[in-house]
Amino acid sequence: MGDWNATTTTTTGAQTRRRRATLAATRGVSLQPVNCASSASAELPARGGETVRERSLERPRGDKKRRRNEISDRLSCHRTQESLLSSSSGFRNYRGILNWCVVMLVLSNSRLFLENLIKYGILVDPIQVISLFLNDPYSWPAACLLIVSNVFILVGLYTERQLSKGSFSELAGFLVHCINLSVILMFPAAVVLLVPSMTPVGGAIALGTYTILFLKLYSYKDVNLWCRELSLVKAKKLSRSLSCPSPQHFKGDEQKVCYPGNLTIRDMYYFVFAPTLCYELNFPRSPKVRKRFLLRRLFEMMFFIQVLVGLTQQWMIPIIQSSMKPLEDMDLSRMTERLLRLAVPNHLLWLMFFYSFFHSSLNFTAELLRFGDRQFYKDWWNSESVTYFWQNWNIPVHKWCLRHFYKPLLRRGVSKMISQSAVFFLSAFFHEYLVSVPLRMFRLWAFTGMMAQLPLAWLVGSFLRGNYGNAAVWMSIIIGQPFAILMYVHDYYVMNYRLETD
Amino acid sequence: MGDWNATTTTTTGAQTRRRRATLAATRGVSLQPVNCASSASAELPARGGETVRERSLERPRGDKKRRRNEISDRLSCHRTQESLLSSSSGFRNYRGILNWCVVMLVLSNSRLFLENLIKYGILVDPIQVISLFLNDPYSWPAACLLIVSNVFILVGLYTERQLSKGSFSELAGFLVHCINLSVILMFPAAVVLLVPSMTPVGGAIALGTYTILFLKLYSYKDVNLWCRELSLVKAKKLSRSLSCPSPQHFKGDEQKVCYPGNLTIRDMYYFVFAPTLCYELNFPRSPKVRKRFLLRRLFEMMFFIQVLVGLTQQWMIPIIQSSMKPLEDMDLSRMTERLLRLAVPNHLLWLMFFYSFFHSSLNFTAELLRFGDRQFYKDWWNSESVTYFWQNWNIPVHKWCLRHFYKPLLRRGVSKMISQSAVFFLSAFFHEYLVSVPLRMFRLWAFTGMMAQLPLAWLVGSFLRGNYGNAAVWMSIIIGQPFAILMYVHDYYVMNYRLETD
Repeated sequence: MGDWNATTTTTTGAQTRRRRATLAATRGVSLQPVNCASSASAELPARGGETVRERSLERPRGDKKRRRNEISDRLSCHRTQESLLSSSSGFRNYRGILNWCVVMLVLSNSRLFLENLIKYGILVDPIQVISLFLNDPYSWPAACLLIVSNVFILVGLYTERQLSKGSFSELAGFLVHCINLSVILMFPAAVVLLVPSMTPVGGAIALGTYTILFLKLYSYKDVNLWCRELSLVKAKKLSRSLSCPSPQHFKGDEQKVCYPGNLTIRDMYYFVFAPTLCYELNFPRSPKVRKRFLLRRLFEMMFFIQVLVGLTQQWMIPIIQSSMKPLEDMDLSRMTERLLRLAVPNHLLWLMFFYSFFHSSLNFTAELLRFGDRQFYKDWWNSESVTYFWQNWNIPVHKWCLRHFYKPLLRRGVSKMISQSAVFFLSAFFHEYLVSVPLRMFRLWAFTGMMAQLPLAWLVGSFLRGNYGNAAVWMSIIIGQPFAILMYVHDYYVMNYRLETD
Repeated sequence: MGDWNATTTTTTGAQTRRRRATLAATRGVSLQPVNCASSASAELPARGGETVRERSLERPRGDKKRRRNEISDRLSCHRTQESLLSSSSGFRNYRGILNWCVVMLVLSNSRLFLENLIKYGILVDPIQVISLFLNDPYSWPAACLLIVSNVFILVGLYTERQLSKGSFSELAGFLVHCINLSVILMFPAAVVLLVPSMTPVGGAIALGTYTILFLKLYSYKDVNLWCRELSLVKAKKLSRSLSCPSPQHFKGDEQKVCYPGNLTIRDMYYFVFAPTLCYELNFPRSPKVRKRFLLRRLFEMMFFIQVLVGLTQQWMIPIIQSSMKPLEDMDLSRMTERLLRLAVPNHLLWLMFFYSFFHSSLNFTAELLRFGDRQFYKDWWNSESVTYFWQNWNIPVHKWCLRHFYKPLLRRGVSKMISQSAVFFLSAFFHEYLVSVPLRMFRLWAFTGMMAQLPLAWLVGSFLRGNYGNAAVWMSIIIGQPFAILMYVHDYYVMNYRLETD
C-alpha cells in the first residue's frame, strides 16, 4: 500500500519537468496547465490539434508506462512563480497599452461626435463660409490690400537697386527701407480698423500676408546689405577659393546669380512666393516638378480645408457658444469643463491645420517653384522642452528669427537670455497684431500667451525630463490654445452680439 | 567688381559645411539655421551661451578672415531636403505620440468627470452600499448559505475517505459525488430564487462562492480518482524512481503527503481557501509570509474597493439610468451614444476590478497561505486573438477547464474543435447562472455574449493580425461588456422599477 502511495505523491516538479521535456513531442496539450511560460498557451490550439491526431494513432499501442507518466503529470499542475504585475517578476511587455489608448481615444471621440450630432443636428453650411470673407459683396477690401502689397515689394526692390548702384547712400537706403517696412505693418492695420466692410477673417488673411511680406523684405534688405559688406572685405585668397563652386549644390544646369545681378523683378517675386522667409541669392532648387507629389499635396490641402471648416461649424462653434454664459457668470467649474471640452476638437483642428499648411500647402508651393529646401518643421511632436517645441514646429519663422533677429543681437553683444526673450517678445507682438487688429479689440491675450511661454519653458525645463517633459509640452499645447481662444471669443461675443440681444 | 561678386555668391553648400566644421568650436550658434539635424537646435541655448562669451573674448583680435567666412555663412541658409512627414524622408521617430494619447485620455476623462459632478453633484453614499447586501436586517440569507456550504465540503471529503478505504465502490462514490456537486449548484440557486429577503448582490456573492466550491470539489474528486488509478497501474521500476523526491521542489522543511494521507480536514480546507481551482496533493509553498507584501496587497484591495463603489455610484448609475428611456424607445442613435458613454467608465471599473481581484486579493490570500503558484493571469493585454485573451486573463479557471474538462474530452477522443466549443459553452452556462439567478430573470444575454466569443474569435483570428488583432480584442472587451450590462439592467429596471412608477 505505502508503496503505491509513494508512487503517486512524490512526483516532484523537477522530474515532472524532465519527463515533460521527453514527452513534449507527443503530448503538447497536456503540458499546457503545468508548463506555464506566458508564451506557451498562445500556441495551444495548433499543438493541441496535432496531439489529438497523434494520440488517436498511438492509443491502440496502449503503453502502460506512458499512461502512468500521463497520470502523474496530471496530478501536479502548480509551480512556484510570481504574478506578472508583481515587481519581482521581471515582466515588462506592455505594448498592448498603446493600442488600448488608441481604441479608447477613437471610441470616446466618436461618442462625443455622435452626442453632438444628436444634440445639434448637422450644422455644416458652406454658404455661411463665404459670409466670413464678404460683408458687402461690392467691396473687397482684403483683395484690394493684397493687390496693393505689390507696391511695397517694388519699393524694396527699387531701393536695393539704387543702393547697389551707389546712387543711394547706405543711410538713405536704410531710412527708405525703415519707412517702407513700417508702412507695410501700419497701412493694412489702418485699413482693417477703418474700413467697415472688412470681416475678421478677411482682415486676418490680409494682415497675415503683409506680416509675411514684412519678414521677407526685411530679410531681403539684410542679405543685400551683407553682400555689400562682404564685397568691402578684401581678401583675394579666400575669395578665389570661394569663387570655384562645387557642382553638387546647384544641379549644374543652373545659372548662379551674383550680387547686383539678383536685383531683378523675377528674382524678387520668386522669393516673395517661395515658401521661406529668409532671402538667399541662389536657393537650392529641386531638379523637376513631380506631378504625382504635386497632386497628392493639392488633394490633401483641399480635403483638410473642407474637414476644418466642417468640424469648426459642427463641433467648435456650438461649444464656444454654449460656453459664453459660464464665462459671463465667471462660473469657474463650468468654465473649466467648457475649456476641456473645447480643448479636444480645437487640438485636432490645430493638428489638421498644421499638416495641411506646413506639410501640404508649403510642399505644394515648393514643388511648383522647384524650391529645394522642404524643411518647414522638425519633429516637434517629440519635444521634451517648450523651447524645443518653439524651435521646431515652425521652421521658416524660426530660421528668420535666428538669422535676422537672434544672431544679430548676439553679434551686438546682447546676452543670450535677453536675445531669447526678445525673440519671444517679437513673436508675441506679431501674434497680438494678427489677432487683435482683425477682431478690432485689444485684449493682449495672445501677447500674454506667447510671453507666458518663457516662464513655462523655464518651469518645464528645470523640473521635467523625457516623457514627462513631452507630456507637459503636449498639455500646454492642448490647453493653452483653447484658453486664449475662449478669452477672445468671449470678449468678441460680449462686444458684438450681446449688445444686439440686449 | 565681378571678382567680389563671385566671392559673395558662390558659397556652395559643400564648402559652407566644411567651413562650418572648422569653425564649429567657436561659432556654434551661427550654424543653427543651416545645420538642420533635428537634434542640433535642441542644444542651441547652451551652445549659444558659450558662443557669446567666446566671441566677446575674441572680438578685440578682429580677424578679417573669420568675419568674411561668417558673413558668407549668413548668406546661405537653405539646403535641399525633404519634409519629415514625406515618405521619402526616412524619418520614423514618433515616440511623442504615446504621450499624446495618454494626455488626451486624461484630459477628456477628467472633463467627463467634471461634467458629471456639475450635472449630478456628489452621489457617493456608503450607507446605500449596505442596502445592496441587506433587505431585511433580521435575515442574512447569503451569510447562511456560506455557512451551509461547509456541509458539501465535508460530504466530498467523507466520500473520498470511504473510497480510499474501499468501503464505497467507485460507482457508489461517483454517484455520491454527482449528487453532492449537483446539489451545490441547485440548492443555492433555489434559495436565491425563493428567499425574498435575498438581494441581487448578496445572491451573486453566494452563487459565486458555490460555483467556486463546485469547481474545487470537482477537481478534488478527479485528482483522488487519478491517484487511485495510478496506484492500480503496477510498475515497481518507475515507482521507485518516483519515490525519491528531489529536494528543490519542496523547500525540504515540508512533509510530503501521500494519497490517502491527504484526505484530512486540514488539507481539504487549505485547498478550499487556496487561490486555485485545481487540487494537488502537495501544492508548491512559498518559504515565508512577506509582511510588507501582504500589507501592500491589503491596502490595494481596500483602496480599489472604495474607488470601485464610488465610481459606480457617481459615474455608472447615472449613465445607466439616463439610458433607460432611449432603450425603451429603441432610439438607435441615442442607444449607441449611451452605450459608448457607458463603455469608458465600465471598462475602467473592469480594469480596476481585474487588478484588485486577480492581483491584490488572490496574491493576498496566497501570501497568507504561503501558496507558491501566483500565476493568476498572464499578459492578456498583449493578446492579438480572442482565444489568447480567454486563455490568459483568468488562469485559475483556464487551468481548471484544461485539466478537468478540455483534456478529459480530448482523451475521450472528442475533436479539439468540439472540446473548445464545449469549454465556451460551459463558461457561458456559468456566466448565465451567476447573472440570471441573482437578478431572478432569464434573458440569456450573458450566455449569448460568451457563445458569441466563438465566431468573434474566428473572425479576428482569420482577418486581423498583430496590433490590429490586439485593437480588435480591446474593442470587444470595451464594447461587449457594457452592451450585455445595458441589456440586463434595462430588463431589470423594466421589471422592477417601471412597474412601481406606473
